[in-house]
Amino acid sequence: MRSIQLLQPAKVIIGENVVDQLTEDELILRGSKILFVVAEPLVERIKPISDNLKSESRDIQTIIYNFPGEPTFALFKKLQDSLIFTPDCVVGIGGGSVLDCAKLLAALADKKQALEDVVGMQLINERATKLICIPTTSGTGSEMSPNAILLNEKTNAKSGIISKYLVPDVSYIDPVLTIKLPPRLTAETGIDALSHCIEAYTNKFAHPAVDMYALEGIRLIAANLVDAVKDGDNLHARTALSLGSMYGGICLGPVNTSAVHALSYGLGGKYHISHGLANAILLAEVLAFNAPASPERHLQVALAMGIKNDGSVEEIIQKGIQKIRDMALACGLPDRLSDLGIQKEDIPELADIAMQVTRLLNNNPRVVTKEDAIRIYEKLY
Amino acid sequence: MRSIQLLQPAKVIIGENVVDQLTEDELILRGSKILFVVAEPLVERIKPISDNLKSESRDIQTIIYNFPGEPTFALFKKLQDSLIFTPDCVVGIGGGSVLDCAKLLAALADKKQALEDVVGMQLINERATKLICIPTTSGTGSEMSPNAILLNEKTNAKSGIISKYLVPDVSYIDPVLTIKLPPRLTAETGIDALSHCIEAYTNKFAHPAVDMYALEGIRLIAANLVDAVKDGDNLHARTALSLGSMYGGICLGPVNTSAVHALSYGLGGKYHISHGLANAILLAEVLAFNAPASPERHLQVALAMGIKNDGSVEEIIQKGIQKIRDMALACGLPDRLSDLGIQKEDIPELADIAMQVTRLLNNNPRVVTKEDAIRIYEKLY
Repeated sequence: MRSIQLLQPAKVIIGENVVDQLTEDELILRGSKILFVVAEPLVERIKPISDNLKSESRDIQTIIYNFPGEPTFALFKKLQDSLIFTPDCVVGIGGGSVLDCAKLLAALADKKQALEDVVGMQLINERATKLICIPTTSGTGSEMSPNAILLNEKTNAKSGIISKYLVPDVSYIDPVLTIKLPPRLTAETGIDALSHCIEAYTNKFAHPAVDMYALEGIRLIAANLVDAVKDGDNLHARTALSLGSMYGGICLGPVNTSAVHALSYGLGGKYHISHGLANAILLAEVLAFNAPASPERHLQVALAMGIKNDGSVEEIIQKGIQKIRDMALACGLPDRLSDLGIQKEDIPELADIAMQVTRLLNNNPRVVTKEDAIRIYEKLY
Repeated sequence: MRSIQLLQPAKVIIGENVVDQLTEDELILRGSKILFVVAEPLVERIKPISDNLKSESRDIQTIIYNFPGEPTFALFKKLQDSLIFTPDCVVGIGGGSVLDCAKLLAALADKKQALEDVVGMQLINERATKLICIPTTSGTGSEMSPNAILLNEKTNAKSGIISKYLVPDVSYIDPVLTIKLPPRLTAETGIDALSHCIEAYTNKFAHPAVDMYALEGIRLIAANLVDAVKDGDNLHARTALSLGSMYGGICLGPVNTSAVHALSYGLGGKYHISHGLANAILLAEVLAFNAPASPERHLQVALAMGIKNDGSVEEIIQKGIQKIRDMALACGLPDRLSDLGIQKEDIPELADIAMQVTRLLNNNPRVVTKEDAIRIYEKLY
C-alpha cells in the first residue's frame, strides 16, 4: 500500500443547527480578535451568534461576502485591506469562494507572505491564526481540504493555493444552512462534489483509505441530489449532500481530482462559467473517455451510483455514466457548451488551458492529449 | 440527524514504514524535550530514529515499556516519576497499554492535575504537550480515540479516562510494525477492534457519519483476521487490520462500545484476562442477545462480515454470529469462561461489576439486566 497523509480538521461537528454551538467554540472563546467572513444570505442567521460573542475583551469584525463569480486576486486583496485588526481566529461561513477567501485570510493574516508568494503547492510557511469553516453549499469541500482557488484576473487563469495550512482547525457541517440554496446552485455544487468523489476513486493515485470516503460520497450524492434540487427543504437530502460534500473534500487533499477539473479550468477562467457547472457539463463525457483505462473502478462508481449489478461490466459502466447525464438534466442543468455561449473556435484554446493543469491531468487514469481534450469539448458542443 | 462531534488526529500518516518519517515530524522537530514510550519488542526498530532526532538542542528520553497486563495506577505513577524532564512532545509506540500511558503522560505532563482527578468523562483541563501515537497492534484504536483505560489495583476496577485531550495530534499507522505480533495477540486484539466496530454500528447512539467507519472496519477485519493470525508476515492482511483497527478507534469517541465491553470489565479487572480475549469470548453471545432489538443493524453487520445476502434476515444474522465464533476458533482462541479459570460462583459478581459500567451499558441496543448478564456468562461457561 502506497503511503498517504490524511490531513483533516481535528474537530468536525455535524448536525442540524450546530452552527449555534459557535458561541461555545474554544478557538473563538480563547481569542480576542475574531473575523467572521459571511456569505450575504447568511448574515441574518449569523448576526445573533457573532453579537453574542462580542465582549469587552473580544472584538468581532464581520465581512459580508457578496461578490459574484470566482474570487479574484484583486478581491482577495480588497478583503485583506478591509481588516481592522490581525485576527487570531477566522470563521468562514459560505460557499467555496467564501471559505477559500477565509482560509487565505487566516493563513496570510500576519502578512509575512503575499498572495503571489503562495500560489502553488505547499508554499505557505505557517498559519498562526485559527481557522473555522462552515459550508453553506454542498460542493467544494473546502471545509475539509487544503485547497483554495482564486482567479488571476490578469491572466484569466484559475490559481490553486494548496497547503496543509489551509486545512481548517474545526469545521461545522450544518445541513440547515444549505436549505435556502437555490435549485440551480444546489445542482451545480452537488455535481462538483460528486465529481470530487468520482475523480478521487478513479484516480491514478487512488488509495484504500480514501476510497471509502469517495464511494460513500458517490452513494449519498447520487441518491439525493435530484431530491434536494426539486425540494430545497428536504432536510434528509440536504444532510446527505452535506456529508457527501465533506467526503469529497476529504478526497481532495491526499488524492485530488483529475481530467474533469483540468478541462473545466478554461471554462471558469476564460468564460467565467461557474466551477460546479463546468464540472457538471464535463463529468459524464470525461468518464466515458476514462472508463476503458480502469473498467473495474468505473464499475464500482456505477454501482455506488445505484446501478444494479446486472449485465456486463461495460453495460453497467455505461448506465452509470448515463445516470450522471440524467441527473444533470433532471436538475435542469444545461449539457452543451454551445448553450453557455462558448465559441466553437475557442475549443483549441480551452484545450491548451487544460493541458497546462498538469497537477490534475497527472492524476487521470488515462493520458489526455490536447487532441483528446478537443474531442471531448467538441462532443459537448 | 442527531448532531455529533468527530475528534480526530489532524494528521494521520498511513503506510509501510511510515514510522521512519518521524525524523521529519514537525511536532518533534519543533520540540526540545521529546519523550518516547516504546513497547519493548520495538525498541531496536525505533532506536535509530530517536538517535537521529537527538541533538544539542533536543533531549530525548526513551521509556521502554515492558510491563505485563493492564497498566495500573501505580505503574502509571512510576512512569511519571521516571521522567527526567517535562516533555513538550510524547511519542507512544506500542499496543493499547503503551499508547494509553503515553496519552496520559502527555496530558498530565504539567502536573497540574493528578491521575485520580481525571478518571471519568472530560475531566482533563488541557494538554500543552504534543502527542503522537503509533500502534503496533491492531486492536484498541487508542491511536484515534479519546480513551485511556487503567486498572485501579486497589479496587480491581478498570477505570476509563475519556477526554478530548487524549485524542493524539498525529498518528502513524504503519502495518509493518505489527508483523511480529504473535498469533494469539493478533487474534485477541483483532477481535477487540472488530468489537469496537460492531458495537458502534449496533449502538443505540449509532450515527451515519460513524457507521461508514464501523462497516468498513468490520469488512476489513472479518476478511483478514484469520489470515493475519495464520501468517503474521501477510502484509496485505496486516494492512487491512491496521486500517480496521483505526476505524474502530474512530468509532470509540463519538459512539463507543456497549454491552460486550461492559461485560468484559470484570473479566479484566478481577481475573486479569486480557482486554481483547475478554471481548472475544463475549462478542458472539452478546450479539445473539442484542439482535432481536435491532435486526436490521445486525443484518448489516452479518453482510459486512461477508455473509451472503440470501435467506431470511434471522438466518443471515445467525450466520454472521456463527462466523464470529468460527473466526475466534480458527484463531485458536478459547471460547469458554471455564477454560480461563473463572469460578462459576463468581458469575454474579462479574454481573455486578458489569452493571456498574452504565457509561457503556446505556449504549446497548437492548436493556441488559443483571439476570441477563448472568445468563450470558453462564452460556459461555
